[in-house]
Amino acid sequence: MIDDVQVTRKIFERYSREFLNMTQVDVVIAGAGPAGLTAARILAKAGKKVLLIERKLAPGGGMWGGGMNYPVIVIQPESKHLLDDIGIKSEDTGDGYYTADSVECVAKLLASAIDAGAKVWNAVTVEDVMIRQDRISGVVINWTGVNLTKMHVDPLTIGASYVIDGTGHDASVCTVARKKAGKLHTPSGEVEGERSMWAEVGEQTVVENTGEVYPGLVAIGMAANAVMGAPRMGPIFGGMLLSGEKAANLVLSKLK
Amino acid sequence: MIDDVQVTRKIFERYSREFLNMTQVDVVIAGAGPAGLTAARILAKAGKKVLLIERKLAPGGGMWGGGMNYPVIVIQPESKHLLDDIGIKSEDTGDGYYTADSVECVAKLLASAIDAGAKVWNAVTVEDVMIRQDRISGVVINWTGVNLTKMHVDPLTIGASYVIDGTGHDASVCTVARKKAGKLHTPSGEVEGERSMWAEVGEQTVVENTGEVYPGLVAIGMAANAVMGAPRMGPIFGGMLLSGEKAANLVLSKLK
Amino acid sequence: MIDDVQVTRKIFERYSREFLNMTQVDVVIAGAGPAGLTAARILAKAGKKVLLIERKLAPGGGMWGGGMNYPVIVIQPESKHLLDDIGIKSEDTGDGYYTADSVECVAKLLASAIDAGAKVWNAVTVEDVMIRQDRISGVVINWTGVNLTKMHVDPLTIGASYVIDGTGHDASVCTVARKKAGKLHTPSGEVEGERSMWAEVGEQTVVENTGEVYPGLVAIGMAANAVMGAPRMGPIFGGMLLSGEKAANLVLSKLK
Amino acid sequence: MIDDVQVTRKIFERYSREFLNMTQVDVVIAGAGPAGLTAARILAKAGKKVLLIERKLAPGGGMWGGGMNYPVIVIQPESKHLLDDIGIKSEDTGDGYYTADSVECVAKLLASAIDAGAKVWNAVTVEDVMIRQDRISGVVINWTGVNLTKMHVDPLTIGASYVIDGTGHDASVCTVARKKAGKLHTPSGEVEGERSMWAEVGEQTVVENTGEVYPGLVAIGMAANAVMGAPRMGPIFGGMLLSGEKAANLVLSKLK
Amino acid sequence: MIDDVQVTRKIFERYSREFLNMTQVDVVIAGAGPAGLTAARILAKAGKKVLLIERKLAPGGGMWGGGMNYPVIVIQPESKHLLDDIGIKSEDTGDGYYTADSVECVAKLLASAIDAGAKVWNAVTVEDVMIRQDRISGVVINWTGVNLTKMHVDPLTIGASYVIDGTGHDASVCTVARKKAGKLHTPSGEVEGERSMWAEVGEQTVVENTGEVYPGLVAIGMAANAVMGAPRMGPIFGGMLLSGEKAANLVLSKLK
Amino acid sequence: MIDDVQVTRKIFERYSREFLNMTQVDVVIAGAGPAGLTAARILAKAGKKVLLIERKLAPGGGMWGGGMNYPVIVIQPESKHLLDDIGIKSEDTGDGYYTADSVECVAKLLASAIDAGAKVWNAVTVEDVMIRQDRISGVVINWTGVNLTKMHVDPLTIGASYVIDGTGHDASVCTVARKKAGKLHTPSGEVEGERSMWAEVGEQTVVENTGEVYPGLVAIGMAANAVMGAPRMGPIFGGMLLSGEKAANLVLSKLK
Amino acid sequence: MIDDVQVTRKIFERYSREFLNMTQVDVVIAGAGPAGLTAARILAKAGKKVLLIERKLAPGGGMWGGGMNYPVIVIQPESKHLLDDIGIKSEDTGDGYYTADSVECVAKLLASAIDAGAKVWNAVTVEDVMIRQDRISGVVINWTGVNLTKMHVDPLTIGASYVIDGTGHDASVCTVARKKAGKLHTPSGEVEGERSMWAEVGEQTVVENTGEVYPGLVAIGMAANAVMGAPRMGPIFGGMLLSGEKAANLVLSKLK
Amino acid sequence: MIDDVQVTRKIFERYSREFLNMTQVDVVIAGAGPAGLTAARILAKAGKKVLLIERKLAPGGGMWGGGMNYPVIVIQPESKHLLDDIGIKSEDTGDGYYTADSVECVAKLLASAIDAGAKVWNAVTVEDVMIRQDRISGVVINWTGVNLTKMHVDPLTIGASYVIDGTGHDASVCTVARKKAGKLHTPSGEVEGERSMWAEVGEQTVVENTGEVYPGLVAIGMAANAVMGAPRMGPIFGGMLLSGEKAANLVLSKLK
Repeated sequence: MIDDVQVTRKIFERYSREFLNMTQVDVVIAGAGPAGLTAARILAKAGKKVLLIERKLAPGGGMWGGGMNYPVIVIQPESKHLLDDIGIKSEDTGDGYYTADSVECVAKLLASAIDAGAKVWNAVTVEDVMIRQDRISGVVINWTGVNLTKMHVDPLTIGASYVIDGTGHDASVCTVARKKAGKLHTPSGEVEGERSMWAEVGEQTVVENTGEVYPGLVAIGMAANAVMGAPRMGPIFGGMLLSGEKAANLVLSKLK
Repeated sequence: MIDDVQVTRKIFERYSREFLNMTQVDVVIAGAGPAGLTAARILAKAGKKVLLIERKLAPGGGMWGGGMNYPVIVIQPESKHLLDDIGIKSEDTGDGYYTADSVECVAKLLASAIDAGAKVWNAVTVEDVMIRQDRISGVVINWTGVNLTKMHVDPLTIGASYVIDGTGHDASVCTVARKKAGKLHTPSGEVEGERSMWAEVGEQTVVENTGEVYPGLVAIGMAANAVMGAPRMGPIFGGMLLSGEKAANLVLSKLK
Repeated sequence: MIDDVQVTRKIFERYSREFLNMTQVDVVIAGAGPAGLTAARILAKAGKKVLLIERKLAPGGGMWGGGMNYPVIVIQPESKHLLDDIGIKSEDTGDGYYTADSVECVAKLLASAIDAGAKVWNAVTVEDVMIRQDRISGVVINWTGVNLTKMHVDPLTIGASYVIDGTGHDASVCTVARKKAGKLHTPSGEVEGERSMWAEVGEQTVVENTGEVYPGLVAIGMAANAVMGAPRMGPIFGGMLLSGEKAANLVLSKLK
Repeated sequence: MIDDVQVTRKIFERYSREFLNMTQVDVVIAGAGPAGLTAARILAKAGKKVLLIERKLAPGGGMWGGGMNYPVIVIQPESKHLLDDIGIKSEDTGDGYYTADSVECVAKLLASAIDAGAKVWNAVTVEDVMIRQDRISGVVINWTGVNLTKMHVDPLTIGASYVIDGTGHDASVCTVARKKAGKLHTPSGEVEGERSMWAEVGEQTVVENTGEVYPGLVAIGMAANAVMGAPRMGPIFGGMLLSGEKAANLVLSKLK
Repeated sequence: MIDDVQVTRKIFERYSREFLNMTQVDVVIAGAGPAGLTAARILAKAGKKVLLIERKLAPGGGMWGGGMNYPVIVIQPESKHLLDDIGIKSEDTGDGYYTADSVECVAKLLASAIDAGAKVWNAVTVEDVMIRQDRISGVVINWTGVNLTKMHVDPLTIGASYVIDGTGHDASVCTVARKKAGKLHTPSGEVEGERSMWAEVGEQTVVENTGEVYPGLVAIGMAANAVMGAPRMGPIFGGMLLSGEKAANLVLSKLK
Repeated sequence: MIDDVQVTRKIFERYSREFLNMTQVDVVIAGAGPAGLTAARILAKAGKKVLLIERKLAPGGGMWGGGMNYPVIVIQPESKHLLDDIGIKSEDTGDGYYTADSVECVAKLLASAIDAGAKVWNAVTVEDVMIRQDRISGVVINWTGVNLTKMHVDPLTIGASYVIDGTGHDASVCTVARKKAGKLHTPSGEVEGERSMWAEVGEQTVVENTGEVYPGLVAIGMAANAVMGAPRMGPIFGGMLLSGEKAANLVLSKLK
Repeated sequence: MIDDVQVTRKIFERYSREFLNMTQVDVVIAGAGPAGLTAARILAKAGKKVLLIERKLAPGGGMWGGGMNYPVIVIQPESKHLLDDIGIKSEDTGDGYYTADSVECVAKLLASAIDAGAKVWNAVTVEDVMIRQDRISGVVINWTGVNLTKMHVDPLTIGASYVIDGTGHDASVCTVARKKAGKLHTPSGEVEGERSMWAEVGEQTVVENTGEVYPGLVAIGMAANAVMGAPRMGPIFGGMLLSGEKAANLVLSKLK
Repeated sequence: MIDDVQVTRKIFERYSREFLNMTQVDVVIAGAGPAGLTAARILAKAGKKVLLIERKLAPGGGMWGGGMNYPVIVIQPESKHLLDDIGIKSEDTGDGYYTADSVECVAKLLASAIDAGAKVWNAVTVEDVMIRQDRISGVVINWTGVNLTKMHVDPLTIGASYVIDGTGHDASVCTVARKKAGKLHTPSGEVEGERSMWAEVGEQTVVENTGEVYPGLVAIGMAANAVMGAPRMGPIFGGMLLSGEKAANLVLSKLK
């Protein structure tokens, strides 16, 4: 026999335990797109306590819609292993590109990150960073529902050794860090802003630009290009995945 | 070297092939929530051509948010095998309930449906049904983007031997069928509307109510309860999954 | 030294304890206006476990604004003791009316209810009732932020021996009970709707109409008049407070 | 017998008397959050004529929602007496923090300020300051309803010896003073903008920054930190209350 | 020398006196369009205490815009005297019609009503009627700003021997009276709704339909046609003015 | 040399002449979609004075977007001559269908209607009909800009011997005629509402249903099917064009 | 007998004549508030061709609402004659201020401007100026309805020897002139922006600042203070009226 | 017999073929207003592969509405041949201007561009440019429906030897090129912004300013004037058409 009140208690008890377990973590990743999910998987697999915070109700970022709502994405041979590793089927087009189902990609990136031990909090917004002596030491969060309705409600804080900004074009964590914490490690000290589409360059720079832009804050994926003033790419996701992998390794080396 | 225009071509060529392959299918499932995803997995595994059409950019329906945004759901022992089958971890609370991570649930239900061969079209809205001699014979679809902006653009039609309505509380496919095709197989011939929450009853009726409500149209999950005037349930998902399983078996028996 | 993460933990730990303590209560009062706050105070003082759920961030309902935004309310001699009891100053106008500061009224009604032991959850919406064998046995709640943004997130359930509808003109709990549970104990079985303003009659009927409109569901204040088809009153609050008092006594007699 | 028209007259007569009594006051406090309410209480107790103007219908500011909508706040030992003084219960967590019910806090801060003699006008917006020979000498107000609907209606003016800006993150009175009156007494002369969350520092600076930022204009609470470029705090309110206390004493010393 | 605070006092003192003088009047006219203004002028001239309440900031109703924003209106010879009486210039088109400047018409109708002694409250909404023993005995009003922002603020009541509904197509006072007070004196007892445009008939019926539709409530102008199910007219205003004149005479005969 | 004021005068002088020439016409067609444009072309070619009134800034209705925003439409062999007549290129698909560019179709339908002598007024809304002794005798129009902003501005009237409703799914002219003038010549006397998509039947009924639904009012295209309760069609336009042709011939036979 | 189509023709014929008569005028006044109306009256009385263009449907600007929606305004002895001249009643408060009914003020300012011969076009927006060899030589107008709906429709141009900006706080004509034509005759060459309220100074500067800010463009009323960086005033209108008078005399001296 | 699914297939098959044929073209023209359509016609006639991309569902830009919604435009003698060439009727006003029906103009400019071989994609937005080694080499597009709903969906890329910006006042392609690619060939390197209306100058400069503002990017029509800081024109279109003609010839000379 099912008792509605028991359902309430079971859900809250588990969440309560998980929440308290996650108030201080190794890594917070803001934005559960392809780069963030890849980083989460590798970091969690390496035994780190990883919390992925996604503003929307559904993780996945800009990958769900493929290109112009055609649910297909393209990947390069160099990054194909990152799909293979987690069982995403890809099709060889015969001329140096692979295509994959964009919905399958999100589902499996997400499943594999969770299987590796990462925790996902969805419909939660990172609205600020916690700063201590010129180092980012956590994030300041609120319910997205509170945020969107502009209700006047204070946020809570999650401590983290590293924060990864995987929020895409807006690079919203880097932007708030710039505004409230100080200059970033970029050519001008500012968030430079993404440049026009040029897949070839963008795919390369997204990996190069992945790195620590402020003590304790690492930019990845499109956020990395946006912060450093590099081109955006279209629905080609190799660089994104490699960026997530690079960030994970970078943070792992620091946390040792 | 990556060429942006080639990326465009590769995506469109694959989509084009897939689209034309899917203009006439065995089953269209409207709404990629837990019931729809379960039905899709079983039908596709049985070799049927299955098209899942999801109005939002992200499939998953109401399952992402757990209960009140706490990303945890509850499941009963009787339906636990439907989680086990696809590798979703659950926790025994010791008193007859299991909890699971709501995000993991969606990711794996989705991955398993795709692995079984179902195709998902997201950000596409079913705005009407195709009707032929008092039988639903397909769905009428449009881009959700067109739909939300009320742009005056005609839809296209996808033919199907069976249409499954997994759109949840609104039962939107059944509602349009009632309005435009005629009376449904319900007590009053109308969409009865869901009743107040009573998990125990709702969990039972959602399976009982799963069935053909108009020739060619099967209601599942919360849509089944809404159409038949039964109670809604909270974040407990056993009945949902069993409803999807029952619908799949029903359609399979008819399609033979 | 203050640690932001500790602040997070302290808040959540206390809330977690309180939440679990409140999943099954004696009385849920929906709507923290003057009638609901008065009922809460009396019930809590009598030792009942009382949970007040308020849709807005700030409790107080329509009392804050006095009449036409002039922060003054009027009270009759018969109900003046309900202000006196909790230290609200009132001014005798010399001809049978007392005036009071509307902001002071809300602050002290609220403080006294909390002092008596009632718990207030604000920015939480009662979106449905829990129904068991033709009796209301609890409420179905969600964050107001989730509700206003129409995010697709399931609610949770709070069990209660009695539910009091103090939601005012909308009588929103009674309305959902009528729609999903069945006919109410009103002349037509429906929510009759409030009638035009007539303070003299409304002030009298609001007390008379306070009562159980469905097993387990008691209507109070303007919700009582709205359910029973009686007149609304203006910024005169005597009947409201007496209605809260009557409802409290009614529920106390039943709970013994 | 109650007469609706008499109710109208009683309300307006009292308001009319109070309004005319408040057109020239000792102190106007804009924003009825925890800092503003504390300042109001102390100033009124000392015999000053104090007018609190709150933009929303309900005073209380960001305190109602606790942290992330969990209605609990945290307070430090040093400021606990400010809760004790007005009868707010707090819980010792055993490790240097106290928690309190956020709703109780607002209700009692508000009740105590009114009991001390402060007058609250709610749903009224301070849209500008009155300036005379380089000194703020009052505020320019309008109905919030007029303001939100952008109706073209002129405001009225309230004269004050001191104006206290307790409007929080926006520091909206300081902002308009900067724009229309001239440079502020801040490092750059501008409203510096709040910095990222750092409770330890923020709690200290909020008291230090409380002070006169322009002749006749005192910034308190989060507005003080925002004006001076100091960190924001989370749902920890000790500094807020101490800031209100400091501002009250500062103004008292000037008004003698 | 001008003192801003004195300006505030002078305005409020005069308003306060006028408000209290107007809480009980002979006639409230809701809607300051051409019919309402004409009725106001005649009633005030006859010595009645007349209060015109206009929902918008600017009185004038649908007359400002002429036809399709061309600021010209048409009038018949039979009603030309009502323009002449108040100095509105009209042009004889030579074939039985007169044209006039629509802006001039509003300005002079308004000036003449005020000169006759009527009082206008603008940006105030009649949201309900006061009802006593099956007779309308006043109106329930609120600031339009409060009304449009859906702030939860109680209204105030103005007593009147007669209420005239001059709110045009919506007949909003009659509609609320029907909903909350009971059946109207119309063929079906309901607000019948206006019929399609037919100037010839509409111009005639608007005068015929002007009358008491519920004890104490008189419908005029387009509201009269809307209540009685008669045709609407275009930018021809003779019937409107005659309707106002008839209503004024009707009420005068009753008030004697 | 160009003089801006002269440009103003030239435009207004021509419009003024055209407007006055069009205040009484043979046929008003509401809605400039494919059916309306075809009817306009044939009627104008036959020497009738034809005024096409289109609510949007751009005529063309639902034809611009082809199917799901793919700018292609389908046509049957039987109606191909209506494309050929006006120079629209079509492609034979080899199995009984022709495709055409949807943008080309609109451009040439429009150009040919204008070449035949029809006048188009765009961004003008038909908001009502003119009714005289149970016959529609014209339309009541306003600027769409006035209409969308809900400005209170009276409309103007255009007289017509026949009014054709080509407003599509809404059948908005028939709907207002039903509401304000009386029962239509349909099975129930009501606007029946369109049924679900069934191209084969819809294409046939759209021609059959084209006819006079009220004296003086002819429904065409999708409005005809909507009024008579017949199925909608997708982006196949043969029936639309034939409906326009039939309506033109019907009206021509009546006007002789 | 009234014929709807004749009503249409009469309105359009008169408007057409008036429009063509007004394409080139002596003075265009943008904004029909108290300053603009006063200027219009004096200029028209002196025989100039004056066109008043008002963005809203109702002229009157910010004067309708008095102060905070209390429909009363204040005037100084020095400007009382400008009320007396046009028959506006004022009340002597006995201490150097006069009050007047704000609605009466607008009605009579408007009526007197029209009686003097000025033409008002309402619901028309001045969206740009016409510029010729560094002199404003007219205004560029569009329907406000087109403007608010952001319909892509080109404006028309009205030629004028002088343009007066009476648009109030926004000084919108001066702002567009600054942006598109070049530097203004102000301290910085920019629109300086209004300063905080200081009635005494503002009342004086509004007259001083009234003047030509760009060849052919005169700023008046609050626009004059906003352009020159002077204080705003509250609901005191003497300076406004004197500003209108000064501008009229200035333009008259130039036009001779 | 018509089969809805076949209709779907025919439309998609044709679109699919056309889409793949258009992924790399000679010229992309963004914005299908009069200048863009003229350029498209000439370029296509010369054998170039031309793709016109229009953000709205209906091409035509600002030409549909004539001046202030009066559907008439003005043209000079020098550009009349561009109307004559494509069969647009114009009227000689006798004093150096020609008028034409604005709706006819759009229809025929569009029809003639398509007849010449240009392809139009409507309801598609150019959201970025593709950049390669400091040259614009294509455009980045998305569905307008996706764009307006801010759905997070990646765009696709179309390659082009030349991109023409015909987006009007916004010059949106030039603006994005400036922001993301670098300085433009304009006086300041920026988009200068259009100046106030001066038809005589604007008509001349629009032709002069038509040219390459960045390698691979040509600005035409109002976009050319906006980029170069020249005046806007009213509803006079000679310069627009000549600008399109000049751009076409410029691109043709480069592509040889």
